[in-house]
Amino acid sequence: MERTEHHASFGGRQEVWQHASRSTGTPMKLGVYLPPAALKGEACPVLYWLSGLTCTEQNFITKAGAQQFAAEHGLILIAPDTSPRGDDVPNDPAYDLGQGAGFYVNATQAPWATNFRMEEYVVHELPEVVAALLQQQGVKTSGRQGIFGHSMGGHGALTLALRHPGAYQSVSAFAPIVAPSAVPWGQKVFTAYLGEDRTQWLAHDTVALIPGAKERLPILVDQGADDEFLSQLQPELLKAACEQVGHPFTLNMRPGYDHSYYFIASFMGEHMAHHAAALKAAG
Amino acid sequence: MERTEHHASFGGRQEVWQHASRSTGTPMKLGVYLPPAALKGEACPVLYWLSGLTCTEQNFITKAGAQQFAAEHGLILIAPDTSPRGDDVPNDPAYDLGQGAGFYVNATQAPWATNFRMEEYVVHELPEVVAALLQQQGVKTSGRQGIFGHSMGGHGALTLALRHPGAYQSVSAFAPIVAPSAVPWGQKVFTAYLGEDRTQWLAHDTVALIPGAKERLPILVDQGADDEFLSQLQPELLKAACEQVGHPFTLNMRPGYDHSYYFIASFMGEHMAHHAAALKAAG
Repeated sequence: MERTEHHASFGGRQEVWQHASRSTGTPMKLGVYLPPAALKGEACPVLYWLSGLTCTEQNFITKAGAQQFAAEHGLILIAPDTSPRGDDVPNDPAYDLGQGAGFYVNATQAPWATNFRMEEYVVHELPEVVAALLQQQGVKTSGRQGIFGHSMGGHGALTLALRHPGAYQSVSAFAPIVAPSAVPWGQKVFTAYLGEDRTQWLAHDTVALIPGAKERLPILVDQGADDEFLSQLQPELLKAACEQVGHPFTLNMRPGYDHSYYFIASFMGEHMAHHAAALKAAG
Repeated sequence: MERTEHHASFGGRQEVWQHASRSTGTPMKLGVYLPPAALKGEACPVLYWLSGLTCTEQNFITKAGAQQFAAEHGLILIAPDTSPRGDDVPNDPAYDLGQGAGFYVNATQAPWATNFRMEEYVVHELPEVVAALLQQQGVKTSGRQGIFGHSMGGHGALTLALRHPGAYQSVSAFAPIVAPSAVPWGQKVFTAYLGEDRTQWLAHDTVALIPGAKERLPILVDQGADDEFLSQLQPELLKAACEQVGHPFTLNMRPGYDHSYYFIASFMGEHMAHHAAALKAAG
């Protein structure tokens, strides 16, 4: 486990770490933001950010403007990479399959199954890695965790929270892919990673997971109304699914906003406040 | 004049424009942020940001987190490129000379003199370009202008404000090169762009300009105490020069901070408040 970057940021510290992952069999990088409260010895909640297609651990930490709000609320921010990477790791020339497009599932199909195990990585390995690197720096956590993300990472945040009840105490998403089984991005990668049997896909499809959710964790979604990928996202499908079973759901449609980090940064403060309220409430 | 990007951002709009520059003889790009107040028809001040070595117009608009504060204060933000660019434009393999390293002077020496005219571009052409593209969109300005920047761009902001009294009503800098004549970065490019005669250099050296300044525009500087380039920056030389003649100067040394955009973003809110106070005061 090696720290490859560290920068003072809003009174805290933005770090990047690299470690050998047992889940993916590759080196993995992650961004770690420690707010001033954590550096002063307070036990802080941990909030995970999952990025979208083509992103590395860098996009969120350089462009989202989240450190300001993490400092304000006393949240530790963890931003992993979006897939395993490397010359020996399977890939595809398309931007939406293979490296940079892990989709936060454990692939069952060749050639992906060996390395593309991002659900295992995020849900089980990453908290251990984070615990170890925080302990190494004398930083304490409160034991509470939240998760959020963008686009493919919004899909990741929603499905991982729904598939692992109790693991996260708050969840939100920017422009998430809510029904991957029903849209081209999801159909392409699920065919590749999970195979032709569509019943396997539904276990990783937010809209399909909502009716059977074991807990009713409130979901906050922001969506740009001028998002160029709206046909891949379809937040109204999630709205309908939540309404049908009474799952608490807030959808903010944002007129004029697109799919970019300009959109994410504009509403980052509201999402961080949502997580802070849930994570800092009595456990 | 062509708009190549536009994104909703903090209730306003982040744009990128490209135009044919008469100063540099090349196409030039610039970032333009229009705050909500400007889109609603209010006459807003214009604040120019000058970036550092290697940067394009993209670094500031994607990483500095300035839109949030520009929206809050009602400031139009303009972020030009740092030099002319192109296959036909002179260059140097080093990162600190040629393309990406315009240094905000008008070069007098071959092969740079034809295209490397960034002082002319920023001070005279850019306000005309901005006026034209704002008029095209029905956006009004208050007629007041501020300027700030980082590293080489901090040098640019300070020297242009000092060399053109009356042009700018506010100035500040992050980690500026304050005495280019006395440090390797400045000595290298000034020799290339301005020639061997060091008296020519002093006209573009903030510390040398302070004693003869025609107006005492207050200067705000933030400097990371752990900046890896501190030996090229030497803010204490500017502090001494200002003290000697009573030029109003505030130097915030920031323990732990480095030279990166993490540093810039952390104190962007304070700099934007500094400019807003000066630019929105009675003219």
